[in-house]
Amino acid sequence: MINPTHLVRPLVQSLSPYVPGEQPKITGLIKLNTNENPYPPSPKVLKALKIAVDSRLRLYPDPTAKPLREKLAMIHNCQPENIIIGNGSDELLMLAVRAFVEPANAPTQRGSSSATVQYFDPSYSLYPVLAETHGSLINPVPLNENFELPNPAKLKKDGRWQFDAALSFVTTPHAPSGRGFSTAALEVLCQKQKGVIILDEAYADFAEENALSLALKYPHVLVSRTFSKAYSLCFQRVGYFVGSLVLVEALQKIRDSYNVNGLGQVAALATLENLPYYKNNFAKIIANRSRLSTELAALNFEVFPSQTNFILTRPPIHLAEKWSHFLREKKILVRWFNKPNINQYLRISIGSDKEVIALLKAIRSGLKGSWN
Amino acid sequence: MINPTHLVRPLVQSLSPYVPGEQPKITGLIKLNTNENPYPPSPKVLKALKIAVDSRLRLYPDPTAKPLREKLAMIHNCQPENIIIGNGSDELLMLAVRAFVEPANAPTQRGSSSATVQYFDPSYSLYPVLAETHGSLINPVPLNENFELPNPAKLKKDGRWQFDAALSFVTTPHAPSGRGFSTAALEVLCQKQKGVIILDEAYADFAEENALSLALKYPHVLVSRTFSKAYSLCFQRVGYFVGSLVLVEALQKIRDSYNVNGLGQVAALATLENLPYYKNNFAKIIANRSRLSTELAALNFEVFPSQTNFILTRPPIHLAEKWSHFLREKKILVRWFNKPNINQYLRISIGSDKEVIALLKAIRSGLKGSWN
Repeated sequence: MINPTHLVRPLVQSLSPYVPGEQPKITGLIKLNTNENPYPPSPKVLKALKIAVDSRLRLYPDPTAKPLREKLAMIHNCQPENIIIGNGSDELLMLAVRAFVEPANAPTQRGSSSATVQYFDPSYSLYPVLAETHGSLINPVPLNENFELPNPAKLKKDGRWQFDAALSFVTTPHAPSGRGFSTAALEVLCQKQKGVIILDEAYADFAEENALSLALKYPHVLVSRTFSKAYSLCFQRVGYFVGSLVLVEALQKIRDSYNVNGLGQVAALATLENLPYYKNNFAKIIANRSRLSTELAALNFEVFPSQTNFILTRPPIHLAEKWSHFLREKKILVRWFNKPNINQYLRISIGSDKEVIALLKAIRSGLKGSWN
Repeated sequence: MINPTHLVRPLVQSLSPYVPGEQPKITGLIKLNTNENPYPPSPKVLKALKIAVDSRLRLYPDPTAKPLREKLAMIHNCQPENIIIGNGSDELLMLAVRAFVEPANAPTQRGSSSATVQYFDPSYSLYPVLAETHGSLINPVPLNENFELPNPAKLKKDGRWQFDAALSFVTTPHAPSGRGFSTAALEVLCQKQKGVIILDEAYADFAEENALSLALKYPHVLVSRTFSKAYSLCFQRVGYFVGSLVLVEALQKIRDSYNVNGLGQVAALATLENLPYYKNNFAKIIANRSRLSTELAALNFEVFPSQTNFILTRPPIHLAEKWSHFLREKKILVRWFNKPNINQYLRISIGSDKEVIALLKAIRSGLKGSWN
């Protein structure tokens, strides 16, 4: 009998998989752990979907999501060819690693920088997983104190940032801190960077500004967006990149030909036709973000300023891990990362009014009670 | 300004992308070019989907599609851990290449066979695309005359088939010929094969037998299935593999964490709860396949025996390419492949009664008329 372990590439055997946030099926749970939107999709989006649920499901979806790219191109003032749609932006992040970064053990004339995936640490924990799955090198570079973006002069002086890395990811607004990076500061970094740079704007709709213009100005810059969070569509897996023709075409070449499911395309298109509904939700989330931040600060929680639909906070008295267990017992799920540089914090998604009130109530009871 | 062409891996620059069958938006077109099912999903599946279109779309889907895997495990008499769900089986075929095959330019102690993707030629044209995207070697091996499966003794004698190739794809029933391969013959091949072997059973529901048992008997054998064709669900991208724990776990490690959209999971699960509806459709398609084959043969078309929802046929009088243009003018789309070993054939999906009648009528008019 064949031992199947020997049939798996040694590289893959050595991987630890990415651990996504919990998606439990417990009813009555307040879910503030994976930055989902507390509000449902627009009733018009739900209606468009129900209408689309018919015999057409037997057919393949549009392989290039052309109507969706055309609509996005109008909104972003570019061409449909500047846009690629993915099965969530996660798929596109994976494709970017495969299109722009060499595996480390393959000989190349471009040196080790051609095999390097670079990112600020902490940031989206998927980046190193994608690099390692591809057999590439990783270069995590610390942010400044309080998760601020180092300027190129500082990066150069520190000597760790590689300005010629094949691919650099910048999560902006930053996760898991929620901090906004200014477009001006990002542009200076883009100007110095020689390799591909992906501005991962999963949370841009909750921010005061975004850097989409840089993707259309610089041929080596891609901006990543998603319908998951701001547009209440995690379930259907639709994300996209905006960028130069050459980079977008390279990604198009290596994606699955029917990578985006049909109902996801229908939902995303209907979403773009109902933006005022979503903008109203953004305002509500931003108001609740402000309220939660203020109230937590008054309870001696250290709260970082957020430009996203979550906050990062260091709780008082007890360890963050203990707080996460305490809140879970109160049926409130928040995210705690078991990683050295962020294990003293909780990341809390901004919920609805009701959820914010319930969270604050649970926290107040935690501050009063005695814990084991 | 940076020239972005230099930012794309040379490997990716050299690729020609996979060309999927046309998905035109012309109304009234009879679409027999991409093997879609002529019948819609079960009304109960559509109902389950409409019910699921609600506020839950804001949430991430089940990251491991657990209820779907549990239901499939019951049907296939295995454990949920023997099953991985993909964004269509295409995604899983891609993951298999990445999990089991080395890129060719990476040094390995296992030799070039560890970097080889092997398949019979012709078969699914995606296989070489996946191999080349990964930087692996391809080994296309001719089938016997009339697309019959060579036995291991013949393969050994010919010397082209590599029994130690890292990954071998066998499309069974075969595409694009439609020919069925017996499970007994496939088992003999599996017993001789040292590397991973994927039995790609996209069309198994239209066949007299399938080889699923081999995936549970041999640790190096995976069976690929899809909801697209037999279950009228191309739009929603759901496929799966069945196989040994070790191989399935390797694939689970490297997939996107939310790779299968939520409504696709809902639809696939509802499908499995309404199998009699689909079995009735299979019977209708098989009856129409028989009818179309008989009538075409009577019109001097050479027709290969089919165990799928399509037939491969060599048309008389005119070249296959010309026939495809002629039928297109009659608003009937069939598939013609511009490839040396199959360019004398048309691949025609089995349509509904009406579509088969319209196709035969168009062909009869083509046989009578004079062409330019």
